[in-house]
Amino acid sequence: MDSHLFSVDYFKKALKKQIKKNGNRLTPVQSMNSYYHSVVSAIIQDKINKNFELIRRIRHLDEAYQAVNEEVLQKQQQQQ
Amino acid sequence: MDSHLFSVDYFKKALKKQIKKNGNRLTPVQSMNSYYHSVVSAIIQDKINKNFELIRRIRHLDEAYQAVNEEVLQKQQQQQ
Repeated sequence: MDSHLFSVDYFKKALKKQIKKNGNRLTPVQSMNSYYHSVVSAIIQDKINKNFELIRRIRHLDEAYQAVNEEVLQKQQQQQ
Repeated sequence: MDSHLFSVDYFKKALKKQIKKNGNRLTPVQSMNSYYHSVVSAIIQDKINKNFELIRRIRHLDEAYQAVNEEVLQKQQQQQ
């Protein structure tokens, strides 16, 4: 499997893509929450993986969420 | 620990409370996604628990999300 898959960088890119895609109708946080829900839901319904691996993926997603959220907040402050 | 805590019913009540609380400014799905993110984030950052227990809690939250979302959709269809 691609080692990049489910990495923090992988999720950061995916979150930014979602924010851009929904830019007209959702706030960045709303976009990220929507993506977060759908990904966690898919991860924990995956019965192939071990619990450790599921938790690792969700932790990466969570770390990426926090990083992108920080970037969004900084951009918003610069624009004010 | 209260056995009700982190049960599906516990999360269903919490999700409904959030929807009601944010009723003026967020859609039901936006409220639920926001709650889902904050709870999963808190659960996976909890280092006391075993991975199995973390996954169990997230699965309960996810099951509750789907149940409440179904109820919301049914209500919306009845109102149309």
